[in-house]
Amino acid sequence: MGKKKHPERPMIDDLGIRIGEIGHGKFNAITDVQGVRVGHVTLIRGTDVRTGVTAILPHGGNLFREKVEAAVHVINGFGKSLGLLQVMELGNIESPILLTSTLNVWRVADALIDVLSAQNPEVHSFNPVVCECNDGFLNDALRRPVGPEEVVQAIREARSGPISEGSVGAGTGLSGFGFKAGIGTASRQWPGEAGTFTLGVLVLMNTGAAGALRIDGVPVGKELAAASEQEKHDGSIIIVIATDAPLSSRRLTRVAKRAAFGLARTGAVAAHRSGDFVVAFSTTTRRTIGAGERIPEEQLTQFFKATVEATEEAIVRSILKAKTMVGRDGHVSEGISGLQ
Amino acid sequence: MGKKKHPERPMIDDLGIRIGEIGHGKFNAITDVQGVRVGHVTLIRGTDVRTGVTAILPHGGNLFREKVEAAVHVINGFGKSLGLLQVMELGNIESPILLTSTLNVWRVADALIDVLSAQNPEVHSFNPVVCECNDGFLNDALRRPVGPEEVVQAIREARSGPISEGSVGAGTGLSGFGFKAGIGTASRQWPGEAGTFTLGVLVLMNTGAAGALRIDGVPVGKELAAASEQEKHDGSIIIVIATDAPLSSRRLTRVAKRAAFGLARTGAVAAHRSGDFVVAFSTTTRRTIGAGERIPEEQLTQFFKATVEATEEAIVRSILKAKTMVGRDGHVSEGISGLQ
Amino acid sequence: MGKKKHPERPMIDDLGIRIGEIGHGKFNAITDVQGVRVGHVTLIRGTDVRTGVTAILPHGGNLFREKVEAAVHVINGFGKSLGLLQVMELGNIESPILLTSTLNVWRVADALIDVLSAQNPEVHSFNPVVCECNDGFLNDALRRPVGPEEVVQAIREARSGPISEGSVGAGTGLSGFGFKAGIGTASRQWPGEAGTFTLGVLVLMNTGAAGALRIDGVPVGKELAAASEQEKHDGSIIIVIATDAPLSSRRLTRVAKRAAFGLARTGAVAAHRSGDFVVAFSTTTRRTIGAGERIPEEQLTQFFKATVEATEEAIVRSILKAKTMVGRDGHVSEGISGLQ
Amino acid sequence: MGKKKHPERPMIDDLGIRIGEIGHGKFNAITDVQGVRVGHVTLIRGTDVRTGVTAILPHGGNLFREKVEAAVHVINGFGKSLGLLQVMELGNIESPILLTSTLNVWRVADALIDVLSAQNPEVHSFNPVVCECNDGFLNDALRRPVGPEEVVQAIREARSGPISEGSVGAGTGLSGFGFKAGIGTASRQWPGEAGTFTLGVLVLMNTGAAGALRIDGVPVGKELAAASEQEKHDGSIIIVIATDAPLSSRRLTRVAKRAAFGLARTGAVAAHRSGDFVVAFSTTTRRTIGAGERIPEEQLTQFFKATVEATEEAIVRSILKAKTMVGRDGHVSEGISGLQ
Repeated sequence: MGKKKHPERPMIDDLGIRIGEIGHGKFNAITDVQGVRVGHVTLIRGTDVRTGVTAILPHGGNLFREKVEAAVHVINGFGKSLGLLQVMELGNIESPILLTSTLNVWRVADALIDVLSAQNPEVHSFNPVVCECNDGFLNDALRRPVGPEEVVQAIREARSGPISEGSVGAGTGLSGFGFKAGIGTASRQWPGEAGTFTLGVLVLMNTGAAGALRIDGVPVGKELAAASEQEKHDGSIIIVIATDAPLSSRRLTRVAKRAAFGLARTGAVAAHRSGDFVVAFSTTTRRTIGAGERIPEEQLTQFFKATVEATEEAIVRSILKAKTMVGRDGHVSEGISGLQ
Repeated sequence: MGKKKHPERPMIDDLGIRIGEIGHGKFNAITDVQGVRVGHVTLIRGTDVRTGVTAILPHGGNLFREKVEAAVHVINGFGKSLGLLQVMELGNIESPILLTSTLNVWRVADALIDVLSAQNPEVHSFNPVVCECNDGFLNDALRRPVGPEEVVQAIREARSGPISEGSVGAGTGLSGFGFKAGIGTASRQWPGEAGTFTLGVLVLMNTGAAGALRIDGVPVGKELAAASEQEKHDGSIIIVIATDAPLSSRRLTRVAKRAAFGLARTGAVAAHRSGDFVVAFSTTTRRTIGAGERIPEEQLTQFFKATVEATEEAIVRSILKAKTMVGRDGHVSEGISGLQ
Repeated sequence: MGKKKHPERPMIDDLGIRIGEIGHGKFNAITDVQGVRVGHVTLIRGTDVRTGVTAILPHGGNLFREKVEAAVHVINGFGKSLGLLQVMELGNIESPILLTSTLNVWRVADALIDVLSAQNPEVHSFNPVVCECNDGFLNDALRRPVGPEEVVQAIREARSGPISEGSVGAGTGLSGFGFKAGIGTASRQWPGEAGTFTLGVLVLMNTGAAGALRIDGVPVGKELAAASEQEKHDGSIIIVIATDAPLSSRRLTRVAKRAAFGLARTGAVAAHRSGDFVVAFSTTTRRTIGAGERIPEEQLTQFFKATVEATEEAIVRSILKAKTMVGRDGHVSEGISGLQ
Repeated sequence: MGKKKHPERPMIDDLGIRIGEIGHGKFNAITDVQGVRVGHVTLIRGTDVRTGVTAILPHGGNLFREKVEAAVHVINGFGKSLGLLQVMELGNIESPILLTSTLNVWRVADALIDVLSAQNPEVHSFNPVVCECNDGFLNDALRRPVGPEEVVQAIREARSGPISEGSVGAGTGLSGFGFKAGIGTASRQWPGEAGTFTLGVLVLMNTGAAGALRIDGVPVGKELAAASEQEKHDGSIIIVIATDAPLSSRRLTRVAKRAAFGLARTGAVAAHRSGDFVVAFSTTTRRTIGAGERIPEEQLTQFFKATVEATEEAIVRSILKAKTMVGRDGHVSEGISGLQ
């Protein structure tokens, strides 16, 4: 899917760059975690609608009835992401995770209630998790065009397998490190004692100062900066982590904190205006967590490494996969070049 | 205003009950803090709309341009209140604080964006703070009737002076301790070295097990429980604290934590399903905080006591001022009796 | 034991006071949680040593090898209690929990290392948990007389069964609400689906303004205040919660937060200078947690109630069981009277 | 001083490596922040004492009377550092910050009480801040040889100006990334509107997997790994940040979080067993904070960048300045080579 839509965008592997030491899963995507589904709705209309919504489903069943263990880490809380305090308290997620444009976040949550209510007509309380980045550079952010129809579609079309990256879904209008950015994903997979573990990351990427980008330590941003004329801006990033390991909420919190390490390696500093949130979940549900083998706390270090590597790679991919886009008021966000 | 609308509802003072030791301000209300305004829109329609919205304005100016110093404390995070993580990070509030029904919270936030945007047309990022309690016992919560019109009206009609309490605004459909509940408020005022300090509390009250209510330590709930036939439920409470003292966000966080002490004194335990959030703000803005005299940290204890007392009293008042209400599916929430 | 040493001190039950609704265990003590042991060493020498150490052992085995699931809640962080950040991160306790005098806390931790090292000669990292209250009103706090000998003795003599309360162990030199205070304990026990659950609380009590004490809501402090001439002081409280239910660290954190509710009911406000920490543990170890039946999150409310009730009662008992004591510089802390 | 003691150890600048974009202060050290003093006592005795203590004094006056504004960030809480919870609550530091060996931390704190008490004879409560890394690979950690004498000496000899780095003070027995490590420092300085701001970092460095080290993005660890035979271990890092800007505790917390970004850039992931704490302070005291010009929150991004850069550089220097050391049981920690 990703390959078909963006044939001219190379996989990072095609560049001969290999980030980290742990191998990745089949699709090198968050969907390598079994059961996880991703769906995008992309809105590009006229000169000033450059936005969308992305749905991440921890599993394909009824999430409200089969909540998944989860955690949140706030890297920098200058953002409007919602539903996170309840995740912190209860350690679970009971809805699809939706990503969208900053000012569209409440409208999307409101629409998500209808979806959850239709599935669970007897329930009168839901905790939608909706996160956001500000696509206002290319998109007319105040318009908030993502509504019930787009939310339903993103959830309905969510599927496992390869994922579209770059300027799709909630990533449509984003930029980072002075380049066009958007959605990126990566995964890591390694053998544990009780079978293979998989950890996948999906980022909604909109942060990083122009010129600061590093790819695997190489300051490519500095060299390519001249090519970019986009204004410097603070942006934000949403990092979603999935794993099939039966990690408790406390452990997922520890894992989530390492996403900041992956972000740091790309050259970002989480600027004052950055709304940088990490949402981590295990596909293990309360029903199945007892069945899972307990993992010694010591083995978390491997999960930490996997998180750092997959986050770093997902961020890089969110840029490599995004092409130049023209948006509102003639604003141009240039796709990275010279590496492709 | 309060007296006119509910002439049969006595002030707690009329009961001869005096909670705590510190005196209160002129109106014994959050509006005793100079500049603070409160507005309610109450929706009672047919048999199953029993809801509304309450707006608390820290001051009468442009809140986005003149943000107020603020803090949040999460007593129990099983709730959908939004905008709080940014308050924690930045230590300020830049919008009116709106209270409403649980599932209506996102729609209200979305409407608030239009209000903020109209005031600040050049801005593309706002952090609305909207908190909620679940009025689903009396109200058809999925309907979410509070929209742009009601939000605009609540803000426009917000004013200083006496406040309507009980079944008004966001408190319309609420219950607590097995009785009808809703909005309650109280204040405390005391002389500091650099002038009089005022601290006011407004609660959106929907929590407490039937029979557990204590008023100034007296287990009145136990005695009156027989009269109440309402089902026991977990509920939630939102506690908003205002002060005119130039307290920093860190200090306001310490103050906010004491609201739990006031809640505890009424007999509540913050049950699993309770979404109990405290929002505290100082009317001091970044522009004026430098001008304020610095208060020795030691004097915070008096602010703690004031918070405990005003919270306890505001909760009691939220019940004393609320009359019996019939709502959806014939549900009845009985007003407390025997004390009045 | 408690009864023998203080025959003239009535159990709170003897006063006809029953706090809360849930029944207590056999000893109405933290030791009702199977396996939990408590030991005191009391130091009363000359006119100015009024201090001691109290050891709480979650179980009788090697705690480093069989760590117990645990959590911490900070009510007010003006205190020197140590080892708590690691408990928050890892969710477990690997040492006895020791209580002692504020400035003696590091010397006690240093002594505890020798105990842990002797048991685990191959290990070079331990996380002692040592909490404190300031007994400087009666005790010459700078002297720090609790050393290796006392630490070894407190641990060695720790046992299950009835517990000495009042002016013993770390409670020897403490005061609260203007009265002599010290150690107090209480428990709650109730039937769950998978058997009986027990929750026990032990407090090291040194907080509360003179005159503010409430017993089951009755402002007895106000009436007895005239009898007390002790200076008002801010003090601190350490609250240790034990349960035999297999609660995870996240859930224990939620339970620990409710200790503040029990504290609030006694009239305290957690003054600025109060160092109020809650340590909660389950006797469930990592080895056994998988075997425990999973408890629905909804049932936590009962644990919350049990915590509130047992904390409130333990605080009251810490005062009722403490007799008048004269200490350094002729300071007198008077035992509560009129109730006994 | 640094140069004299380690003439063969080049400054990182000598390698032609320039980390980041912001210039550094006169000494490229934490002591570039006016008033900050650093003192080391190094203990190298026989074959198995390889330890010490490092004192950081925020200013040269009485710290208890002139507390400095401060904050703490926990990157990974598997550590014994003490005094931090009170810093979080009150937002200040009232003692020298001492660094030492893990199991020596309580003994050092106990000794520090005598120092503080001698300066403030009327006070009976102090909050020593003592942080640690585990030097047990080279040092017989259970011996705990740092006592009152060493503590007094480290504080007394603390001075401004150039700082010894590498295997000195608390850094004596440490290793990181498979190389000998220890103390490192760096600073950043830039013009603000109200004058020049300085931010300095000092690290106690003991973390990082063998082979993972990156210097300015270059994976030098991978190339030099063959030369190192030291066992892989988890370690820890303490990062102390000083600034002369009048930042509040809340803002310092935001700054402290960015130390993790600097750490991440060097190749670390904050492994499970890592006790990674950040302590940040402003030399601004409560007495002077009112006099300081208020800095717009937006300008924090520059402080964030300075923190990331100075932390990264201080870590690299902690390795570049440390020579091969032989310790207990014949353990060898090899100094990095090939770069010098």
